[in-house]
Amino acid sequence: MALGEFDLIARFFTRPVRRAVLGVGDDCALLQPTPGMQLAVSSDMLVEGRHFVSTVPPERLGHKALAVNLSDLAACGAQPLAFTLALALPRADEAFLAPLSRGLLALADEHDIELVGGDTTAGPLTLCITVFGEVPPGQALRRDGARPGDGVWVSHPPGSGLGDARLGLEALRGRVVLSGEGFEQARRAMEMPQPRVALGLALRGVATSAIDLSDGLTGDLGHVLARSGVGATIDADALPTSAALAAQPLALRRECTLAGGDDYELAFTAPAAHAQRVLVAASSAGCAATRIGRIEAAPGLRIVDARGAAVAATFPAFDHFKT
Amino acid sequence: MALGEFDLIARFFTRPVRRAVLGVGDDCALLQPTPGMQLAVSSDMLVEGRHFVSTVPPERLGHKALAVNLSDLAACGAQPLAFTLALALPRADEAFLAPLSRGLLALADEHDIELVGGDTTAGPLTLCITVFGEVPPGQALRRDGARPGDGVWVSHPPGSGLGDARLGLEALRGRVVLSGEGFEQARRAMEMPQPRVALGLALRGVATSAIDLSDGLTGDLGHVLARSGVGATIDADALPTSAALAAQPLALRRECTLAGGDDYELAFTAPAAHAQRVLVAASSAGCAATRIGRIEAAPGLRIVDARGAAVAATFPAFDHFKT
Repeated sequence: MALGEFDLIARFFTRPVRRAVLGVGDDCALLQPTPGMQLAVSSDMLVEGRHFVSTVPPERLGHKALAVNLSDLAACGAQPLAFTLALALPRADEAFLAPLSRGLLALADEHDIELVGGDTTAGPLTLCITVFGEVPPGQALRRDGARPGDGVWVSHPPGSGLGDARLGLEALRGRVVLSGEGFEQARRAMEMPQPRVALGLALRGVATSAIDLSDGLTGDLGHVLARSGVGATIDADALPTSAALAAQPLALRRECTLAGGDDYELAFTAPAAHAQRVLVAASSAGCAATRIGRIEAAPGLRIVDARGAAVAATFPAFDHFKT
Repeated sequence: MALGEFDLIARFFTRPVRRAVLGVGDDCALLQPTPGMQLAVSSDMLVEGRHFVSTVPPERLGHKALAVNLSDLAACGAQPLAFTLALALPRADEAFLAPLSRGLLALADEHDIELVGGDTTAGPLTLCITVFGEVPPGQALRRDGARPGDGVWVSHPPGSGLGDARLGLEALRGRVVLSGEGFEQARRAMEMPQPRVALGLALRGVATSAIDLSDGLTGDLGHVLARSGVGATIDADALPTSAALAAQPLALRRECTLAGGDDYELAFTAPAAHAQRVLVAASSAGCAATRIGRIEAAPGLRIVDARGAAVAATFPAFDHFKT
């Protein structure tokens, strides 16, 4: 069935607003921010063939498009409020749009946020979401607050770790063969990331800096180090992994955990004295946190193994124009 | 020269923030809204081959991408504050990005707003901008406030009118032949729309409803009528036009003014008693406003000519999935 632009907005993306003053269907949405709070804003664009494969189930694509944006709010310690969606579609296809909106709105409901506006157009399949959140002045987690002596931490699912999304991608590419269950788990990590919103909120006043892991640990952590004017040593063997990834050859394990990308976990720093508070924050947020290294005054990122020997890590940070 | 993603963000799109708490380069931007004000948000996506031709000068493309978003704020009577840009690019090409950012940031400077964040990725050329503005509670111009007896107005450049953007497109398509000067003027209307931000602000408390003309007058006005639960009669011969468009055959003139699209003027309604205030608002905003009809209780849009005879207007509202 051929749906027009206004039909499809009404049909799949319009619900009564609960919190916004004015939602989908006017020139602008109107929100009433809490007086005195700061507004946190982030925008991410997902392009078919670049950020997702054409065979991804639309419901998972809807989930992921919002998840990667919520992950940015999480990394700032912001409480999500609302989002806009701009969508370019090759055609208005109900069989695609119905599950897409279902996956998107299910995650929105989970975080009690509203789709307040956006745009639809014909074009190569592209999703651009902009999210809004609130944070009390001065309490946002930023990239520039890491200090020498701070511990370096990563969040992860209890009993699992980093790198599964990359493992799933390598399995799709045919570079790795996984068991049925291992493949499903890795694919789920790639397609259904869980943004660490609750952890970001719990880390306000506990962490000194944070970033979400989208492009790979070494590259993302590098941004924190550069903006904070510090360096770090991390222990590659301390990086948590799933059982499926732990069973892979060392080189692949290193690549997936250190430079995998698409983890959407948080990497953050906290004073050594806050270690217990970090663990409590993670536990309260339903995830785990593992200390993987330490911030140092000397610039640069040093990667060592459990014996303290240097680990060659020449994986570049993921760059959309260099890969 | 091959630029990487982070290089190009730094080089073309990062400037020191003036008003934002935190700008480009962290997981989120942080803004400090004025306590008590409502936040107006709009998001528009421009796709090559659909919203602009591949031969558009990049500086004009940068201008237009922001202009169409500012136009949405204008239609709400919101004061622009900041915007994000998500950009998919076939390649990181300096000869394209330098003028693109120049055109974009020149218009941003004109409206004293900041680029606070966004995303860049490889992909088919696509620009997605989300703008933020502020408006005092209850003062936003909306689509649902038109009342029977209100006048229907459109803004336009002094001495010119609606439909020039469409005329320019038809000239590019070879359907119309214009003089050199006429073509330049029409092309400028298409590529360099001037968002009516000052007019939108001046119409707070004067207009009862407003919308920006992006998809064509009849379709856009139809949204106002539907949301307000009213109808209207407009006089097709009262629609202001440029000299170049006035010289075209009647059918083309009607098509361009009534259904042209891409005008980015405001269509708005105001009580008859506010006519003088409308003219003062337009004059203070450096544009003209012409009364083109009247809101009526009977649903539907009736189009008549200067003699009161019905004008056949079967132009569909522009729909990205139906044209």
